[in-house]
Amino acid sequence: MADTITVPRGLAGVVVTDTAIGHVRGQEGFYHYRQYSAIDLAEHRTLEDVWALLIDGALPAEPKALHEEIAPLRHIPPAVAAALPGIAAASASADPMGGLRAALAVAGLAAGAGPLYDTPPAQRRAQAMALCALTPTLLAALYRLRTGREPIAPRDDLSHAANYLYMVTGEVPSEPHARAIERYLIATVDHGFNASTFTARVIASTGADIYACVGGALGALSGPLHGGAPSRALDTLDAIGSVDRADAWLRTRILDGERIMGFGHPVYRTEDPRSRMLKGIARSLGGDLVDFAVAVEERVLSLLTELKPGRELHTNVEYYAGVVMHLCGLPREMFTPTFATSRVIGWCANVLEQAEDSKIIRPDSRYVGPPAPQPLPPDDPAA
Amino acid sequence: MADTITVPRGLAGVVVTDTAIGHVRGQEGFYHYRQYSAIDLAEHRTLEDVWALLIDGALPAEPKALHEEIAPLRHIPPAVAAALPGIAAASASADPMGGLRAALAVAGLAAGAGPLYDTPPAQRRAQAMALCALTPTLLAALYRLRTGREPIAPRDDLSHAANYLYMVTGEVPSEPHARAIERYLIATVDHGFNASTFTARVIASTGADIYACVGGALGALSGPLHGGAPSRALDTLDAIGSVDRADAWLRTRILDGERIMGFGHPVYRTEDPRSRMLKGIARSLGGDLVDFAVAVEERVLSLLTELKPGRELHTNVEYYAGVVMHLCGLPREMFTPTFATSRVIGWCANVLEQAEDSKIIRPDSRYVGPPAPQPLPPDDPAA
Repeated sequence: MADTITVPRGLAGVVVTDTAIGHVRGQEGFYHYRQYSAIDLAEHRTLEDVWALLIDGALPAEPKALHEEIAPLRHIPPAVAAALPGIAAASASADPMGGLRAALAVAGLAAGAGPLYDTPPAQRRAQAMALCALTPTLLAALYRLRTGREPIAPRDDLSHAANYLYMVTGEVPSEPHARAIERYLIATVDHGFNASTFTARVIASTGADIYACVGGALGALSGPLHGGAPSRALDTLDAIGSVDRADAWLRTRILDGERIMGFGHPVYRTEDPRSRMLKGIARSLGGDLVDFAVAVEERVLSLLTELKPGRELHTNVEYYAGVVMHLCGLPREMFTPTFATSRVIGWCANVLEQAEDSKIIRPDSRYVGPPAPQPLPPDDPAA
Repeated sequence: MADTITVPRGLAGVVVTDTAIGHVRGQEGFYHYRQYSAIDLAEHRTLEDVWALLIDGALPAEPKALHEEIAPLRHIPPAVAAALPGIAAASASADPMGGLRAALAVAGLAAGAGPLYDTPPAQRRAQAMALCALTPTLLAALYRLRTGREPIAPRDDLSHAANYLYMVTGEVPSEPHARAIERYLIATVDHGFNASTFTARVIASTGADIYACVGGALGALSGPLHGGAPSRALDTLDAIGSVDRADAWLRTRILDGERIMGFGHPVYRTEDPRSRMLKGIARSLGGDLVDFAVAVEERVLSLLTELKPGRELHTNVEYYAGVVMHLCGLPREMFTPTFATSRVIGWCANVLEQAEDSKIIRPDSRYVGPPAPQPLPPDDPAA
């Protein structure tokens, strides 16, 4: 075709659209939500404040307003609750992301959510709030059903982060644990046009309903190259076992060309600012696992510099995310789902923004097969 | 950022990757699967042949082999069947696409499908075959459950197209109806990097499982700007009511800037070749609706030429697709789902191809909000 445009692999650096939600400055190791540093927000604000910032565009004037709006939306509607045991029973594996996709699709059916294309902005926002509020409850319920326990109803007096830990573990978390997870959740609400956010926007560009957009994004997040890796980083620590074994274990893998989970990022050419913050949180929580993780990180970075010179492979968000989630009592199978409980807010902000644009996202490809058209071969059973 | 790349809106014409699956030549009004004209295939081959062509890369040497492989895979696994009533009961609206997303997510759980990243190619292909084979059965079952009837088990002796009509309507279709739908299904198996296929590939690029990829694609297909419109085209014919009312009805809408459903395409600058074929099928089936649709089409094209000069708005696939599906006994709510039963084969072919590429698809955006970082405002409840 005459007017195709060749761009870098994976659309790296290709500007899909304008956004006022935030951005990642990979060269600077900096990212922001609206006009604020995401790390500043994680250090100093609540998840509810950041939620309002993402969805409504501004930090709330009334700090409690968003909590009061979302607390009732955290309860599972009866039609969805009725479908959950069947979804949980079908789960052959421990991965709750597929279960969440099923449960959120059912929630969309029960809500009667129609195409964005036909939905006025205020109603789109209401759907986004309901979807984001319900997601942690669905995940916790699916986890508990799959492990043979009753789901725990949300507690309206708890913050979103504390309530999530409560619904998964069955115990009201300590203040340091609740705040550690809250800071993790804030730091992972949004992060530029990552694969899942981009997926949500592509689907939104067709005018599909918001549950369809988020369902696709959840699928992308479940991929090991995107959000499906924090438990793998912890698995790596388990496999290494002790600091004295780290060098030999890591050297073999790196020389074999294997990825070391928790290192390297498609955008950052510096340390991932989320990793630095999460390392600080891990250290404040303390313990043997943290000391071990810090020692292994030092060995990985040293070996990557030695064996992959010039590659700029730094610690990414997933390395200490796994450590922090483990220390706060979350089981490993809930690491990626926990990531989803915050990122869903970013996806919805992006979907609401994309819904203002009437242009479908539809790229092109380069055909590299045998020249077409060839005549059909003679064998022709339908003739 | 220094090295971002600005491209046309909606990534129009932007080459995301190489493919050997097929291509759309929008300027020529031509599209192909592998090296064959898609329309030639629809005229002369079975859906099963085209399925093999898409997934395995060649027309089958043994015409019956694919049928024998997929017939047993059309039966719903017990764990999925157990979850279907809960999904159907939650459906507040008649749109079965959300129900299919839920049901396929459950099917993925029951199959224990893991990340593409960890799955050997032969197993990926087996997952694709199972997913494509099961999709029509799930859709028919959800439709029948929602309308208060028992699902109908697939019949192993019927072709894929005939079996689909049988499971939806409860009657073995006539040969002309089965073949009309088969030709529609063949003609819609694949169509370049449309929004749903692209969605599937973005998700696949994260290494997520194939059910996650297809779940996202289903979401995109449900959008009114993509696959969610064939029933709307028929709704338009209903709203117009009679040929003598067409001019006034259409003129008002076109002058108001409304889209006329079934006209215009983001890639074709000529008549959509699928539309031409479907018009022929509709005419061969015959009847008042066909005559009316042909008369209205003539008026729409004439008015678009008069009122939107130079816009190159032609009849697209959806206009006669709705007419053909209606004539074959499919209810309107099953039009987009029927599209999904064929396109799922194209999605899976694309997912299998994308799985050979280890590069994540992650574009960029242009931040256009207030300059960042701004200092956080003083109100600081979490401090």
